[in-house]
Amino acid sequence: MASTFYSGEPESPIVKTDIPGPKAQEHITKLDTVFDTRSLNMLADYTKSFGNYIVDPDGNALLDVYAQIASIPIGYNNPALVKAAQSPDMVNAIINRPALGNFPSHDWDQVLETGVLKVAPKGLNQVFTAMAGSDANETAYKAAFMWRRQKERGGPAVEFTKEELESSMNNQAPGASELSILSFKTGFHGRLFGSLSTTRSKPIHKLDIPAFDWPQATFPQLKYPLEEHVEENAKAEADSLAEVEHLIKNWHLPPAAVIVEPIQSEGGDNHASPAFFRGLRELTKKYDVLLIVDEVQTGVGATGKFWAHDHWDLPTPPDMVTFSKKAQTAGYYFGNPELRPNKPYRQFNTWMGDPARALLFRAIIDEVERLNLVENTAKVGDYLYGKIEALAKKYPNDFQNLRGKGQGTFIAFDSPKRDQFLAKAKKFGVNIGGSGATAVRLRPMLIFEKQHADILVEAMEKIVTSW
Amino acid sequence: MASTFYSGEPESPIVKTDIPGPKAQEHITKLDTVFDTRSLNMLADYTKSFGNYIVDPDGNALLDVYAQIASIPIGYNNPALVKAAQSPDMVNAIINRPALGNFPSHDWDQVLETGVLKVAPKGLNQVFTAMAGSDANETAYKAAFMWRRQKERGGPAVEFTKEELESSMNNQAPGASELSILSFKTGFHGRLFGSLSTTRSKPIHKLDIPAFDWPQATFPQLKYPLEEHVEENAKAEADSLAEVEHLIKNWHLPPAAVIVEPIQSEGGDNHASPAFFRGLRELTKKYDVLLIVDEVQTGVGATGKFWAHDHWDLPTPPDMVTFSKKAQTAGYYFGNPELRPNKPYRQFNTWMGDPARALLFRAIIDEVERLNLVENTAKVGDYLYGKIEALAKKYPNDFQNLRGKGQGTFIAFDSPKRDQFLAKAKKFGVNIGGSGATAVRLRPMLIFEKQHADILVEAMEKIVTSW
Repeated sequence: MASTFYSGEPESPIVKTDIPGPKAQEHITKLDTVFDTRSLNMLADYTKSFGNYIVDPDGNALLDVYAQIASIPIGYNNPALVKAAQSPDMVNAIINRPALGNFPSHDWDQVLETGVLKVAPKGLNQVFTAMAGSDANETAYKAAFMWRRQKERGGPAVEFTKEELESSMNNQAPGASELSILSFKTGFHGRLFGSLSTTRSKPIHKLDIPAFDWPQATFPQLKYPLEEHVEENAKAEADSLAEVEHLIKNWHLPPAAVIVEPIQSEGGDNHASPAFFRGLRELTKKYDVLLIVDEVQTGVGATGKFWAHDHWDLPTPPDMVTFSKKAQTAGYYFGNPELRPNKPYRQFNTWMGDPARALLFRAIIDEVERLNLVENTAKVGDYLYGKIEALAKKYPNDFQNLRGKGQGTFIAFDSPKRDQFLAKAKKFGVNIGGSGATAVRLRPMLIFEKQHADILVEAMEKIVTSW
Repeated sequence: MASTFYSGEPESPIVKTDIPGPKAQEHITKLDTVFDTRSLNMLADYTKSFGNYIVDPDGNALLDVYAQIASIPIGYNNPALVKAAQSPDMVNAIINRPALGNFPSHDWDQVLETGVLKVAPKGLNQVFTAMAGSDANETAYKAAFMWRRQKERGGPAVEFTKEELESSMNNQAPGASELSILSFKTGFHGRLFGSLSTTRSKPIHKLDIPAFDWPQATFPQLKYPLEEHVEENAKAEADSLAEVEHLIKNWHLPPAAVIVEPIQSEGGDNHASPAFFRGLRELTKKYDVLLIVDEVQTGVGATGKFWAHDHWDLPTPPDMVTFSKKAQTAGYYFGNPELRPNKPYRQFNTWMGDPARALLFRAIIDEVERLNLVENTAKVGDYLYGKIEALAKKYPNDFQNLRGKGQGTFIAFDSPKRDQFLAKAKKFGVNIGGSGATAVRLRPMLIFEKQHADILVEAMEKIVTSW
């Protein structure tokens, strides 16, 4: 059965050829002469893709639960987004791209307030817009360093010293601060030089790239099913928090901030409990270190809440929350006015985001609200989790460490033959992604429904019974 | 007189109120509650701006020779771009944003070949697409580090050692390389952590942000007029090259690449001769260090050539050329297949650019070719330079160190009262930007014509006679 939200979706997957088929292969061969195609997963025809289905030039239509690495929010060729893309506002934003920090448009306040700020996490009412997840995190880091040094200096009114001004130009202290960002092992925060220094996912992401000597704490390695490992897991979380505390107190470059993903998404779908995150908030408060929650992959509804950290019941909000992917634009939220640096042009760049993408996010938010898609994702996620739980009982070796209960459709499990699993999925009409070394990660769109869950589960059973 | 390329432009500037006027001020006050407005230069109404004129909510229409920090190529609300923005391709690209490295569209090869690659610098036939100038440079740096370490390791087939794999995860050598990027003093290459380590423009750009201990060479400080300082200037360039050679041979973190702007644009419009850049190409070749030319601000026609380094008559092309701003998309060009890392997923991120912006660049290129706008810019630039040269004779104190002869409209001069000069310009109907400490930088669009030059020169004379 096709989408009940929009008409036009296939009833079920269509697999006509191997993937890539002959037509796709022709395009790939041409493309490879000018563009690296070695990481190519599937060549797509987006003019023919619709809703939850990605279509390729050979006419294959796969149920897409990878969704452009978790970044398509409400389906391919969504009619509401077509309308937004054709609007005069969008045309204007595409062709008259401003340098937002210098020359914002007269309606930029409105675009922000009726869009990106309408869904701002509780307690955070300001936004710095960026281009993608990496620079969203890096600008948040910059804000943290400037905030921390300003505190150490004695407040916003204290001028920089001559020595700071001069040494900064030589990349030396005290002008260049000797501070750090603390991140977690197996975490992922981007691939530019600052964000990559906090990324600890896989060597292939990091090899040969110079890095800052910043600290990393062990992320709790929870055992599944959770209810059978309550004590062990609580100890793993306590140990992790103790390590964080130790690093905050002792690392030779003191952390200005701790960054954490609600669910480590590239690193293998590693979860921790709300209590762990509350503990992290307490610790960072205690030592006056900022807490940055990286919601680049978890944000915008996929976990059954608009922001994954809404699950935690924090006593005080995070200091900054970064976003990208399903938001189709990027940046970070903050609340504390001290996170605006003391002078202009300290946190600045030419474009500072893209109004066209901000308009698109606004249209996405409107549609998510109109159709209650966060609630939909919570409900369908529970249904899907139950079905996979049953599969895991039947095929315990093929579906290990099922996780993501109560986290919407943000569900994963380990497969001993993960890469084969993902490759075979296409033969059975489903596009699925992996994370970490052994995880199969499910990242459906917010318009994923029970009937899609049924198709997915059926395909997954076919995969594991086919070998 | 209005644009001869497109109808709809004002005949001349219109200044009705102070800037910001009452309506703009109302928007600014609102915007400031959620978005830092301290670097705001002028609030604009882009729905009413056209061609070379930026219009604000109070009805002021300024001749814009700053052009969103040199990033508007062919005018506000350009009719050809309106058409491109309304095309089904564009709508598709906006709403179905792919993870380009994994799921490129069937026509991505065509989009590249009929667009961004059509204007690829001589000798460079491949492209890595990015989002903005900073990440264009940083991904180029990453390519340089991977290339260099691969060479040291003994080629693409040599596997990483266990020690490399493990140490990379701890941000330590040998996995994290102890290499550097050499840049020039007063250069600007972006504001993320890697690019900021190569940026040497102003302390305000760098203060408090941790930086890599990378080397910087003195950029030649040419004296003007050039013809009166031939020997001194030649010596300054020779000294700079000697310093580069010394740093390449001796810096404790060996440079994998040298990055240079054809004209240091944020750092004060500092020029060097083609001979200097040929020398730099020879030196980098001699020591097997890559040469990255940062054409983020100089690229796409403003200097009277499509790429500013086309002025140099290089014996061999640069290894990489980065672009952004007027291209409205970003990335780096390269030719050497060895600059594709030896394994997939080493140079990768979710979006890897934005097809919507690539389509826009294609439309810009078509229009630049159709109207011969590079030639136009060369011609108008010569005309404008002559007029300012005459002004500088008349007001030698107010127009010092005029530079950019034969470089299209990429013209600058020093003003002892620079900030006042820029502020006053608005009163006389012109929007102008500065660079460095004392430079007035002119960055007209490619559709800037003689009649606009006359308006600009008249306004500049009014400014300096008004105090």
